[in-house]
Amino acid sequence: MVAVKARRRLGMDYQPILEQIHAEIRPLLDQGRVADYIPELARVPGDKFSMAVRTVDGRSFAVGAADERFSIQSISKLFTLVIALQIAGDELWTRVGREPSGNPFNSLVQLEHENGKPRNPFINAGALVVTDVILSALDNAIETVRDLLRGLSGSADVDFDLGVARSEQETGHRNKAMAHFIKSFGNLKNDPDRVLHAYFHHCSLAMSCRELCEAALFLANDGFAPLSGDRIMTPKLVKYINSLLLTCGTYDAVGDFAYRVGLPGKSGVGGGILAVMPKRFAVCVWSPGLDDSGNSLAGTRALELFTTLTGESVF
Amino acid sequence: MVAVKARRRLGMDYQPILEQIHAEIRPLLDQGRVADYIPELARVPGDKFSMAVRTVDGRSFAVGAADERFSIQSISKLFTLVIALQIAGDELWTRVGREPSGNPFNSLVQLEHENGKPRNPFINAGALVVTDVILSALDNAIETVRDLLRGLSGSADVDFDLGVARSEQETGHRNKAMAHFIKSFGNLKNDPDRVLHAYFHHCSLAMSCRELCEAALFLANDGFAPLSGDRIMTPKLVKYINSLLLTCGTYDAVGDFAYRVGLPGKSGVGGGILAVMPKRFAVCVWSPGLDDSGNSLAGTRALELFTTLTGESVF
Amino acid sequence: MVAVKARRRLGMDYQPILEQIHAEIRPLLDQGRVADYIPELARVPGDKFSMAVRTVDGRSFAVGAADERFSIQSISKLFTLVIALQIAGDELWTRVGREPSGNPFNSLVQLEHENGKPRNPFINAGALVVTDVILSALDNAIETVRDLLRGLSGSADVDFDLGVARSEQETGHRNKAMAHFIKSFGNLKNDPDRVLHAYFHHCSLAMSCRELCEAALFLANDGFAPLSGDRIMTPKLVKYINSLLLTCGTYDAVGDFAYRVGLPGKSGVGGGILAVMPKRFAVCVWSPGLDDSGNSLAGTRALELFTTLTGESVF
Amino acid sequence: MVAVKARRRLGMDYQPILEQIHAEIRPLLDQGRVADYIPELARVPGDKFSMAVRTVDGRSFAVGAADERFSIQSISKLFTLVIALQIAGDELWTRVGREPSGNPFNSLVQLEHENGKPRNPFINAGALVVTDVILSALDNAIETVRDLLRGLSGSADVDFDLGVARSEQETGHRNKAMAHFIKSFGNLKNDPDRVLHAYFHHCSLAMSCRELCEAALFLANDGFAPLSGDRIMTPKLVKYINSLLLTCGTYDAVGDFAYRVGLPGKSGVGGGILAVMPKRFAVCVWSPGLDDSGNSLAGTRALELFTTLTGESVF
Repeated sequence: MVAVKARRRLGMDYQPILEQIHAEIRPLLDQGRVADYIPELARVPGDKFSMAVRTVDGRSFAVGAADERFSIQSISKLFTLVIALQIAGDELWTRVGREPSGNPFNSLVQLEHENGKPRNPFINAGALVVTDVILSALDNAIETVRDLLRGLSGSADVDFDLGVARSEQETGHRNKAMAHFIKSFGNLKNDPDRVLHAYFHHCSLAMSCRELCEAALFLANDGFAPLSGDRIMTPKLVKYINSLLLTCGTYDAVGDFAYRVGLPGKSGVGGGILAVMPKRFAVCVWSPGLDDSGNSLAGTRALELFTTLTGESVF
Repeated sequence: MVAVKARRRLGMDYQPILEQIHAEIRPLLDQGRVADYIPELARVPGDKFSMAVRTVDGRSFAVGAADERFSIQSISKLFTLVIALQIAGDELWTRVGREPSGNPFNSLVQLEHENGKPRNPFINAGALVVTDVILSALDNAIETVRDLLRGLSGSADVDFDLGVARSEQETGHRNKAMAHFIKSFGNLKNDPDRVLHAYFHHCSLAMSCRELCEAALFLANDGFAPLSGDRIMTPKLVKYINSLLLTCGTYDAVGDFAYRVGLPGKSGVGGGILAVMPKRFAVCVWSPGLDDSGNSLAGTRALELFTTLTGESVF
Repeated sequence: MVAVKARRRLGMDYQPILEQIHAEIRPLLDQGRVADYIPELARVPGDKFSMAVRTVDGRSFAVGAADERFSIQSISKLFTLVIALQIAGDELWTRVGREPSGNPFNSLVQLEHENGKPRNPFINAGALVVTDVILSALDNAIETVRDLLRGLSGSADVDFDLGVARSEQETGHRNKAMAHFIKSFGNLKNDPDRVLHAYFHHCSLAMSCRELCEAALFLANDGFAPLSGDRIMTPKLVKYINSLLLTCGTYDAVGDFAYRVGLPGKSGVGGGILAVMPKRFAVCVWSPGLDDSGNSLAGTRALELFTTLTGESVF
Repeated sequence: MVAVKARRRLGMDYQPILEQIHAEIRPLLDQGRVADYIPELARVPGDKFSMAVRTVDGRSFAVGAADERFSIQSISKLFTLVIALQIAGDELWTRVGREPSGNPFNSLVQLEHENGKPRNPFINAGALVVTDVILSALDNAIETVRDLLRGLSGSADVDFDLGVARSEQETGHRNKAMAHFIKSFGNLKNDPDRVLHAYFHHCSLAMSCRELCEAALFLANDGFAPLSGDRIMTPKLVKYINSLLLTCGTYDAVGDFAYRVGLPGKSGVGGGILAVMPKRFAVCVWSPGLDDSGNSLAGTRALELFTTLTGESVF
């Protein structure tokens, strides 16, 4: 069966498609707004673009600066969730929901109406609770996330950008408000400042499109990490995470993203978007200019073109 | 290609799986609550159950009373959307959004905050606008929806349950509030009472699991209706509708439904849930007892078992 | 005691103050926006202005067209409340609250969060419930309100403006939404259309500044109507109504109105504002141009000048 | 004129009335809930009660432990507002509103909808901005508030309860959330932690009923402090503050408080309520058990009895 599929699908040569996309999105590169609420991020040139694809049968494709690292920001939420699910299993859902929020990523309104239980692990509030779960269980919570990404990506020098982490520490008042707010409902076990410290570090990790593709490939591969052959999670958990990505991974634009792109994906305000096609491939795109929902403007369009031109989406 | 796929997947015999499910969900049949806000619906026995599968290669499977008709209620929203998209195309999205609402299906809060533009076509407010679009374009809007379902299902006697329609007309004050509210923002062109009249009729259509599977199969079949061979819509529109079903089709439980079931689907307070696996099959389940989100309790569990046992979901 | 007070305070000659105000507010007359959501109201010239004062010791003062009638609109809510309190007493507060809403007069958000119990009797939702109370108790509810105002004002020809009532009936979709919404929570006993019919009639009553002063004077006079000598309500109920007027009488500008004017008052989108100084006087002003909160722009300023120049406010 | 008034009103002997109230409220003393979110406050015995009246013509009345100090908590907001208005004048209203919030005292929802501008200076969010204004203008902001209260009350040993201040510092996560949230909108100039430090100190001030009456008497006396003869503020500002107290001083129960008591007042979760009758008196009551809105349960009832028995309220 795999052989049959491989002949048909996996054999597809994505390189010309990536190049076509690269050409088409060029006019969009200066239309988004580079995130400026974190001063360090505001310095990234807005015209950067790269895109990489990694298939479960071992092939790689890329255009642009696919080895240049950028701040993964909220894409880290995907990997902290992986660790928290390994720690807490379904217990996690007593402290975080799994419904789309229908609100901006940093809203406190819903949190108040729902007594401090965040809607899902991919909004900031949810990621703070996820981080709290990791902090309660692991002595070296901050490094564990980095080390997971080093292992999955095969790049031993993946690391935090301490300038970005510090920058958020100084200016991230909305996130601080959120952490204290959740604490006031009793849904953080650790000191809010400690949770924020870890959270800002995870967000500051710098990785390239190629590295992120490699790191997420297990989600397209029934839970097996291709590099190591390690089972990262069961196929059932993989299915769960992919469904969460699809319904909650792109802030308050999940409907639009599902409609246009049709892949489970996670975006970050650094301009990266990482997506997976179950059984087939991981794809990552980076372009720092954001749309009104905080997703990469050219990046979303590039993924839309990708699923349209290849005919490959989950729908 | 279709031939190859058929050999591999479609060959799966779903009958024993359906029977296993039927056995397993029995204890759940009396745990949900039959919708009682529409008096006519409250009379349906709570222990009813049926489930049907229809594959794109022409095979059918069923358990329970798969030919017994029930009130499709909000499942009709899927088919009114099909017609409205044929009429208005992408223009529709200027009047209805395509994001999950994160709120109960009949909430007016979001509608006020967003100036009368409903979040998506699958909440009541959105379906009212969709109905308004059809009413503005077609003389016989009410019958057109019924006739589409007759044609797709191949059952020429599919019809409205006028008792149910009348029952809603008398008691549906929340829906009336919603229609007048949308009108007050100028987002209904027709008289609210006329829109409600059509809407209540569409919701009152009575169909069986088998008929609904047949009617939705084009969504698993690149837009072709298997019975007639007619192209109902382009593959691109099919992808759009499936993505909307996944992110918005099950009220404020879309995350939970995606997580557990992993298929695009639409539920109704009559206890039906209709779902599709792109390129493979349509599946429909009916059990009148609802959970707190208004989705069939045993029906959701049955679909969860189905995708778990078959290993077939979009994730 | 009354004699002593009369010598000191009531002797004040308000006429020159009214004339000074009339001169000062002239430049404001074209700055507000005449309500246009009711087509009939939109026809009133924006530069109209009148103001009248009536003291508990029987003197009257006026400037402008103080005998010209205008649509009292929400000022009617004060008098329907008087009747509903006579009917239901404190039982009324099980169905309507008595807190400021902090929201626009026609918001449905709070109503949903608070399960159909309106915040207070002076927002539209609350007035609909008040009207429902009257309709349940009286056969001729519509006329009773008119007749109360005829009696209190001493003008036997006070009447509805049927053009205005009809105009609202045709266009008042927000109010219709509200009535059906409250009904859906079970907080209307009568048919919503019947409640709306009565409500729109009460709002359409046309009265002059002089007539409204006369009608409200019992609120400044321990509950006695000066014309008839009738006790309209107990001093305790008078205190209650005045406190409600102060905390809830001017939509979402009650804080601003209390701050600037410092009198219990009720405004209407027809441009009228009626206020009372307990133990002293009733004052009414009319100018159709409204500010962003729906209160008469020049009227609010005129009242602010009045309490500043006379030094008489409750604070 | 004052002489005439004095004969009539100020001659009233409030002592028997206070004693009657003391007897009547006894059964209520164990019905409220002592605030327990600040551990230090939870230790105060729930059956404490005291009440004091101070008239503008120099007489004093009291029952219960009227010299026993308690934590004034939010009553401090009245005095920080006095200082901020002296500093910023009407400019203050560009950063804080003056409308009732219609929400609990510690809600963040409204703050988000209104972009970090608190509704009024008497909810926590508003008091944080007021504190920020003082901190920006004065080197010794914390002590200035204490010293104002020492001067007004004539008690040179009024002071902070550092145990209470520390207790809030450790547990006040909701207030910390709020401060960071306001900062994220740019509506705090100082570091949130510094603002919180000052705010918690002001709230921790301990004073007796007698001292608070004395301190607030200038609000009943056209702005003159009776002890010193100093003009604290203009009559116009006094009118403004009294109107703010009436419409915003008692959390989300301002309507109820105005209805039952009918005086401008400010409550604190320590169980104190301070109110004024313009031109006549200040009254203060203390009973630690709170009702659902966070106001002293027996204290509110005591004030209701007071205005009912004396016939003196602003309405």
